[in-house]
Amino acid sequence: MSLESYMNQIGQQARAASRLLAKASTQQKNMALFAMADALEDARPRLIEENLKDMGNGRAKGLDDALLDRLLLNDKRIDGMIEGLKQVASLPDPIGEISGMVYLPSGIQRGQMRVPLGVVGIIYESRPNVTIDAASLCLKSGNATILRGGSEAFYSNQAIAEAVVKGLEFAGLPSTAVQVLNTTDREAVGKLITMPEYVDVIVPRGGKGLIERISKNARVPVIKHLDGNCHVYIDNEADFDKAFNIALNAKTRRYGVCNAMESLLIHADIAKEILPRLVGAFEEKGVELVGCELSRSISVSIGMATEEDWYTEYHAPKLSIKVVTDMDEAIAHINQYGSHHTDAIVTQNYSKTRSFMTEVDSSSVMVNASTSFADGFEYGFGAEIGISTDKIHARGPVGLLGLTSQKYIVLGDGHTRDN
Amino acid sequence: MSLESYMNQIGQQARAASRLLAKASTQQKNMALFAMADALEDARPRLIEENLKDMGNGRAKGLDDALLDRLLLNDKRIDGMIEGLKQVASLPDPIGEISGMVYLPSGIQRGQMRVPLGVVGIIYESRPNVTIDAASLCLKSGNATILRGGSEAFYSNQAIAEAVVKGLEFAGLPSTAVQVLNTTDREAVGKLITMPEYVDVIVPRGGKGLIERISKNARVPVIKHLDGNCHVYIDNEADFDKAFNIALNAKTRRYGVCNAMESLLIHADIAKEILPRLVGAFEEKGVELVGCELSRSISVSIGMATEEDWYTEYHAPKLSIKVVTDMDEAIAHINQYGSHHTDAIVTQNYSKTRSFMTEVDSSSVMVNASTSFADGFEYGFGAEIGISTDKIHARGPVGLLGLTSQKYIVLGDGHTRDN
Repeated sequence: MSLESYMNQIGQQARAASRLLAKASTQQKNMALFAMADALEDARPRLIEENLKDMGNGRAKGLDDALLDRLLLNDKRIDGMIEGLKQVASLPDPIGEISGMVYLPSGIQRGQMRVPLGVVGIIYESRPNVTIDAASLCLKSGNATILRGGSEAFYSNQAIAEAVVKGLEFAGLPSTAVQVLNTTDREAVGKLITMPEYVDVIVPRGGKGLIERISKNARVPVIKHLDGNCHVYIDNEADFDKAFNIALNAKTRRYGVCNAMESLLIHADIAKEILPRLVGAFEEKGVELVGCELSRSISVSIGMATEEDWYTEYHAPKLSIKVVTDMDEAIAHINQYGSHHTDAIVTQNYSKTRSFMTEVDSSSVMVNASTSFADGFEYGFGAEIGISTDKIHARGPVGLLGLTSQKYIVLGDGHTRDN
Repeated sequence: MSLESYMNQIGQQARAASRLLAKASTQQKNMALFAMADALEDARPRLIEENLKDMGNGRAKGLDDALLDRLLLNDKRIDGMIEGLKQVASLPDPIGEISGMVYLPSGIQRGQMRVPLGVVGIIYESRPNVTIDAASLCLKSGNATILRGGSEAFYSNQAIAEAVVKGLEFAGLPSTAVQVLNTTDREAVGKLITMPEYVDVIVPRGGKGLIERISKNARVPVIKHLDGNCHVYIDNEADFDKAFNIALNAKTRRYGVCNAMESLLIHADIAKEILPRLVGAFEEKGVELVGCELSRSISVSIGMATEEDWYTEYHAPKLSIKVVTDMDEAIAHINQYGSHHTDAIVTQNYSKTRSFMTEVDSSSVMVNASTSFADGFEYGFGAEIGISTDKIHARGPVGLLGLTSQKYIVLGDGHTRDN
């Protein structure tokens, strides 16, 4: 079969399965999730065996250690997948909720019903556990899923897919409700993102390069997460202890995460007082510092920042520091150089918190809290398919609700329109 | 200036204006809308004069009467624009609403704030009054707007733009908050839909050709309305009078609108009883009928429908009719051939209404009501920028809310994340 025919078949099957999933009961979906957990448990030896093939191929291809680590499936990671399935089963089912039903002058009643998006395409890189993460969230929200994992995880993903299908069949759901592509042809991605007749939305999970490539070529809406160039602004009216703790936590809790602070902005009036203390703490943690002229005049430990630094998500123990004359300059800097992900202000001034919340154009805006909290679990969603830096549809951490849509429901009793 | 530089300048100006609009007060936005209304009133002679140029050029180019009618500005249409501005001013301002603030286990409070999308690009065809419609809705929702009207309405749109700018300046808002492109170069559209750094969403308003072209080439999200191939399904348990009235109203209220019924589905058990009565009524109104074999065996007035007919939005006094064996066949037909716009069931059976609402995958699903109600005004939004057949972001009639997004707000008091 040609790739074109194969992808069309996958698409048709997904669309057909989505019709059945849209009317599946919560009980049936949960039953499938628990059955998948059981099937993964049963498949442990096979999962590890298949993963060994991928690991061997990866080593032969010279993949670096970080990539090999992401690729690895061991008992602990399989435990994690099983636990994840049970957690998603325990989440409330968002589908079917009807809200806002009001009577209108014509006599009709109008409201909205929460419904699945339909078919979700997930494109990801080396981590095989994403297969379960993504499939479970899509299933719980009533969507059919087409998964395309990294070619380096091919055997692992196929083995996981077998367990998924067992779970679906056990619950009487179509086995095509979750389809893992069985080709490593790169053209398959190109086709997946350009068949709007079969795919309602694409969620890419991976590096910036992957996401930009997909966004550029997609003819299907993409829920995407680009940079996390997050800022903390310490205002002149900040409580210094809170500011110190928040800045330190936002930068040093973990370096490789998207909600880590990459740039620190400090009001000029208090920079001399707070910056040396912070510089000491960052140095102790081994964080490399670069900054503006003013910051460097306060601490000689700060290297020179280039224009490029202000745009950069380091994903590493490195931080850029800028001294600003007031909050307005901080806001303008964040809106210009930031990535509209998560930005925080530390201040005790009530009016400034209101302005900062209104004017900073980011998916999460925080007051006196660490940017580290930008996360679907911390926000209480119980799960997260990603963090969206888009403004359309889903913005910020995306849980089950981000995988749903709402349709209008109108109830009449023979009503016709006169005008 | 090259087109590239011109469009970049427009984009930068829009982005800068959007920052100021995001923090503009409701009073200031309403003041601008009222001042625009006054400016249009003052500009009446100039508007009509400039419109005469467009009408003359249009006649010289041989535009047909329907297009010339859409292009025409007369006192009544100027009244309509002025009235529209005042209506939008009277709508509640959606911006700034904070909802869902809850305390989470970590001690932070998390909720969402409703915010503008940022910069909205509107691409439309010949109707100059869309300039005011779109600009006023975008302004009220705090968005900067870039408008690109049809080249045939160039002079009319420029004259309207002058009034818009007067209104903005009167209210102390940036004159670049609403920009009407002053070029008829088709490349301008190509640029507008591919500058995600300056434009957050595109709303095309016009024929299917325009919208498909834009969707295909855009690198910016598009809120789009494609077909309105709407169905009414008359169930065997329908109240016949309600069914008769709804079917007649859905088809014959107006033919050229997107919420008109284009296809009628009738349960086989009652087709013999109700179809002849409906055929008589449709014939009286001059509606051409085509249908399946079964429908034709009941009424000789029904022509033969082709496969293509089931996909077709006639926009005309023509209707396709299909006799189905049960509701499931009706739902499958709607999901396959329909355009996911608006579809209705007529039945007295409670369980069937629940299944129909859940399973029909359309932006509006109606029970015992005419599809004609699918409309932002009938839904109580007070305004409508269009009807979206997308599932992402805005689905169904789009009012002010569809031009907004929500960002997360987190309030802490020095909170940091431990885990």
